[in-house]
Amino acid sequence: MLIVMRLGATKKQILEVVQGIEQIGYEAKISKGAQRSLILVHGNIGYIDESYFKKYSGIRDIIHISKRLKLVYKENVGGVDSVVDIGNNIRFNEKYSHIIAGPCSVESKDMIMETADFLHSRGIRIMRGGAFKPRTSPYSFQGLKEKALEYIAEAAHKYNMKFVSEAVDEYSLSLLSEIVDVIQIGARNMQNYSLLKKCGTIDKPILLKRGFTSSLDDLYVSLEYILAEGNQRIIVCERGIRVFEGTKQRSIIDLLGISDFKEECHLPMIVDTSHATRDRNKVPGLTRAAMAYGCDGLMIEVHPDPDKALSDGPQSLSFNDFDMLLIEMKKMSDLATKPIKFFKEDE
Amino acid sequence: MLIVMRLGATKKQILEVVQGIEQIGYEAKISKGAQRSLILVHGNIGYIDESYFKKYSGIRDIIHISKRLKLVYKENVGGVDSVVDIGNNIRFNEKYSHIIAGPCSVESKDMIMETADFLHSRGIRIMRGGAFKPRTSPYSFQGLKEKALEYIAEAAHKYNMKFVSEAVDEYSLSLLSEIVDVIQIGARNMQNYSLLKKCGTIDKPILLKRGFTSSLDDLYVSLEYILAEGNQRIIVCERGIRVFEGTKQRSIIDLLGISDFKEECHLPMIVDTSHATRDRNKVPGLTRAAMAYGCDGLMIEVHPDPDKALSDGPQSLSFNDFDMLLIEMKKMSDLATKPIKFFKEDE
Amino acid sequence: MLIVMRLGATKKQILEVVQGIEQIGYEAKISKGAQRSLILVHGNIGYIDESYFKKYSGIRDIIHISKRLKLVYKENVGGVDSVVDIGNNIRFNEKYSHIIAGPCSVESKDMIMETADFLHSRGIRIMRGGAFKPRTSPYSFQGLKEKALEYIAEAAHKYNMKFVSEAVDEYSLSLLSEIVDVIQIGARNMQNYSLLKKCGTIDKPILLKRGFTSSLDDLYVSLEYILAEGNQRIIVCERGIRVFEGTKQRSIIDLLGISDFKEECHLPMIVDTSHATRDRNKVPGLTRAAMAYGCDGLMIEVHPDPDKALSDGPQSLSFNDFDMLLIEMKKMSDLATKPIKFFKEDE
Amino acid sequence: MLIVMRLGATKKQILEVVQGIEQIGYEAKISKGAQRSLILVHGNIGYIDESYFKKYSGIRDIIHISKRLKLVYKENVGGVDSVVDIGNNIRFNEKYSHIIAGPCSVESKDMIMETADFLHSRGIRIMRGGAFKPRTSPYSFQGLKEKALEYIAEAAHKYNMKFVSEAVDEYSLSLLSEIVDVIQIGARNMQNYSLLKKCGTIDKPILLKRGFTSSLDDLYVSLEYILAEGNQRIIVCERGIRVFEGTKQRSIIDLLGISDFKEECHLPMIVDTSHATRDRNKVPGLTRAAMAYGCDGLMIEVHPDPDKALSDGPQSLSFNDFDMLLIEMKKMSDLATKPIKFFKEDE
Repeated sequence: MLIVMRLGATKKQILEVVQGIEQIGYEAKISKGAQRSLILVHGNIGYIDESYFKKYSGIRDIIHISKRLKLVYKENVGGVDSVVDIGNNIRFNEKYSHIIAGPCSVESKDMIMETADFLHSRGIRIMRGGAFKPRTSPYSFQGLKEKALEYIAEAAHKYNMKFVSEAVDEYSLSLLSEIVDVIQIGARNMQNYSLLKKCGTIDKPILLKRGFTSSLDDLYVSLEYILAEGNQRIIVCERGIRVFEGTKQRSIIDLLGISDFKEECHLPMIVDTSHATRDRNKVPGLTRAAMAYGCDGLMIEVHPDPDKALSDGPQSLSFNDFDMLLIEMKKMSDLATKPIKFFKEDE
Repeated sequence: MLIVMRLGATKKQILEVVQGIEQIGYEAKISKGAQRSLILVHGNIGYIDESYFKKYSGIRDIIHISKRLKLVYKENVGGVDSVVDIGNNIRFNEKYSHIIAGPCSVESKDMIMETADFLHSRGIRIMRGGAFKPRTSPYSFQGLKEKALEYIAEAAHKYNMKFVSEAVDEYSLSLLSEIVDVIQIGARNMQNYSLLKKCGTIDKPILLKRGFTSSLDDLYVSLEYILAEGNQRIIVCERGIRVFEGTKQRSIIDLLGISDFKEECHLPMIVDTSHATRDRNKVPGLTRAAMAYGCDGLMIEVHPDPDKALSDGPQSLSFNDFDMLLIEMKKMSDLATKPIKFFKEDE
Repeated sequence: MLIVMRLGATKKQILEVVQGIEQIGYEAKISKGAQRSLILVHGNIGYIDESYFKKYSGIRDIIHISKRLKLVYKENVGGVDSVVDIGNNIRFNEKYSHIIAGPCSVESKDMIMETADFLHSRGIRIMRGGAFKPRTSPYSFQGLKEKALEYIAEAAHKYNMKFVSEAVDEYSLSLLSEIVDVIQIGARNMQNYSLLKKCGTIDKPILLKRGFTSSLDDLYVSLEYILAEGNQRIIVCERGIRVFEGTKQRSIIDLLGISDFKEECHLPMIVDTSHATRDRNKVPGLTRAAMAYGCDGLMIEVHPDPDKALSDGPQSLSFNDFDMLLIEMKKMSDLATKPIKFFKEDE
Repeated sequence: MLIVMRLGATKKQILEVVQGIEQIGYEAKISKGAQRSLILVHGNIGYIDESYFKKYSGIRDIIHISKRLKLVYKENVGGVDSVVDIGNNIRFNEKYSHIIAGPCSVESKDMIMETADFLHSRGIRIMRGGAFKPRTSPYSFQGLKEKALEYIAEAAHKYNMKFVSEAVDEYSLSLLSEIVDVIQIGARNMQNYSLLKKCGTIDKPILLKRGFTSSLDDLYVSLEYILAEGNQRIIVCERGIRVFEGTKQRSIIDLLGISDFKEECHLPMIVDTSHATRDRNKVPGLTRAAMAYGCDGLMIEVHPDPDKALSDGPQSLSFNDFDMLLIEMKKMSDLATKPIKFFKEDE
């Protein structure tokens, strides 16, 4: 920890701060600059709360070199990326990126089987499908709940699919963790620390969506809540952040945020290109851009009949649209540092 | 619902939209403007999903006059404000505004009793105190939990205080609803719809904090989740919204948002002037400003010894600071349209 | 224009509004919805100021179908894109996209000749180079001014280059318009309407940068100021918009904004991928992403010796870095709907 | 300047940075922390550009203790506030705050004389009135220009009024500086550095509006441009900043920004409570709040007949509205640390 004194701080002020540091058991070392004095705090292991120093005058800034978060930073965990294995040879944060596709919600058994069959035939082995849905109206379709889990289990078994589905509370988390392979925590629950702690104690990978108004620092706090409870298998998902252009579009993919995140944190980051716009016509462009920039995977909403979808229809791709996008994605994949892994029939 | 066609939309395009409306059972009426045609949809009771109209060309805009939210809007509930009675003659959204004061967290029995005694002597009858705390580090003090509830119960009884305390999940909600008088849902959980639904089913007033990056429209969705489950007793709390000046300050009180909210929604809105800044020196200024602008109450953090507080110390006022602020608040109260209610010794 | 009445607006209120409309010479037509009445205003040519209707009660919303801007919207100019020809067969908004490269500022004759030679050899024919620089400190290098223009003229002539350079006031605008081929107006001057009007009267193409906190609607006003004075040759440049992640990065490229812009406005939009980050290591990623998403051109800072650059060094690419990026850009160009035009030696 | 090395930076990396510092003529001093090494740069007078250090690995952060701005910071100018005297005994940043009132634009001689007469009778001696108007449509009324200046001169003389009017370019600046007492630079031109430099060379006080999307740091750069040219008489005006609630309201007064500004900068800051909302009904509330928070003055739009105003009608107060607001302001003034100065008939 480093304390930056104001210009013209008196000797007396500096000595008082030094004494204050020593009173709480640390060593202080004064470093006088051309213009300003700095006091370096040695020997602290935990976080020293800034409020302790409020009583001293002459302080300009306090810089915490020992941060309040520990496990989330790459530099604290040996500087290497953490690989997240979700089974069936699918590993995030290694040399391949992966596609997660499927409908917003599980609407019926037929549509889930049909979608799983389609995606499997395209070499995709991770499917999304919501059983519990937090919608922007309490009167909208909220998911098939327990029923959806049956369909997911059947499709997963028949098509050798890994399933991602969202938990919205403890109850859904406990049900889902019996059935699905990856538990999603949605953007609205990104700061539901109570639920995150629970995610830290289960033996399933977590897919945490960055809140659409959350800074990376907010995200790191949320990740630390999961990591601190012992679950290191987390895939982070950028889904666009809200900007002042509120009336025109939902959000903007924070591309620079992906590389900032990957520099600072050891976890994989994928991009959800469906939620950043409410318009399926813009999904291909954002998908190409995210791939061209570089990321660990993509999440895309696909529906057998988007115009009749019970949720997120306008931003969902039909099978045909998705096939056209796959052609573009394959070309883009050839240029990417992390090409997409397409699985063979029997993989 | 109103469909605005593009300039130059053809007769054919217009007729197709009309037929589409009729196919789903509604009546359509074309209204031709000087420059543009409008199609008015009659007879719809529920919300018609926009995605249905994606297939038609020539549409420029769809305006939902029947909104997806119902109970939150003042105009839908007779145009009058809802009074929220929390007991002991304390009613929000009537002619008085009210002060809620107390520490961020319950740290010990002594500090709670001491603070309750102090606040009671100043004519204040609503106290805050966290038992379950969602902190920005998983390693920070997370509250005394069950133990805190004992202290709250004792202080409430001895000093005839109404208590506000935050629930962070179902478990804490169920415990708190046995003991405290008002259940707070914090800014981070404002979109935890699952928890909000539970709040809708209990027989206690709810104090819902607006998320610090939430628009009023986001807030209305959250309120509707509670209202739709049957609980109409909700106090809304503005605690500052995040702006681009991220490095300088935590957030900005959205004063205009208070009057926008009060025009549109029938519920009371109070202002938390402690959380909008991390600096106790700025609390008095914001408090005066909020009172001068007009609001239904104030929430202020007060602590017997802020420099030793386990949480939010820098923004908490000492008893002495608070006494000085009360002098200013009383003067301001004389000018306010909703003066603050200070209770007599035996009230 | 359309006036949406409140729920429960009385017959009397509606008739008063109708009379108000008729008093100012327009025709009003009432359209009664299932829940709400609308009043459609016929016959208005100009903009009717909303303030006129402030005196009437019962109005909920006023929708201006006749907008206050005219020339900027694609639908008002026949629905087709405007091609901007800057000479030498270089046309923006046609089938090719174009690269504009070069240093932030003209620092010496040598560096300009050297950069022009390099870019020419890579098939690039548009060069950037600031003569007048608005810097974030008045004590920083502010450009070589008149001297820079000499060097630009010489390089343009020798290497058959088109030059883009920034005007910051009337004086620099008048000097630049004698020498360079495209006049840039920087992000900070995007709302300097006085300068924009001047740009509307000169016979040179304008490159207008979107302000980094400007909405598209703000941008349209600025464009209208130029267009209204008679200059239709404008290239718009997205350079990233500021988001709440202020401490981490400068800005975020608004990719969805590009397609929103292209749908609404008839002018070409290019992307400056150097200014969106202060870090040259992130320029290639953003460049690939912008190309993959789709745009009309790219602006990239290239400098013979970035570490010694007098301005924008950290975000400038060396010749070597740029060569490596060109390899990627050529691959990406093969996939793009608007491939980049690289000129032959003698073009 | 202070260089913070990464955790685990090697001795070699540290020594390379030290050598780099010495190569450019400064002294480096290593300060080893418990976890991290710091390198303190001594002896630098000017700003050392960060780009110089891009070539070194192992650096985590560079902290500029010597800032790139000098004259704007209070601590650099002796720690005292600068009083801005605009004549007739009116001094900003002393013990009184002052009201600036008047119409958005000068629309006719009559309305200016009528408003001046009214304001004078209420003890107000500073009047606003635009001669050159930057409007959000090029087709809107742009001001009476030279004609307006005549009327201003006459009213100023007859009623002993100080006048504030906006310059939008060099031409208007030069005309205005002959006639009016304070030159306003509007929010849209806050980063028009060329115009700001010109403001630095004239012998009139400047009223600089903070841009509605500008951070305080952006504002400081703009102020430094004026200060560096020698004009120290600047009044800064907060007029609300844009937030994500774009559809609901224009902007939010950044109250905390006022005290942050006053702590860091020596100049006075007033608040324009008319422009932060487009609704005159909200002006009184914001005015009371700004006074209650504390500021050096207020700017309020007043018009003899707001409903017929050629600009800003909806947010302008009538004489009657303003009289009612004055009653509230006088009460509030009694509580304020800086009461408003109302002038006597013959002052």
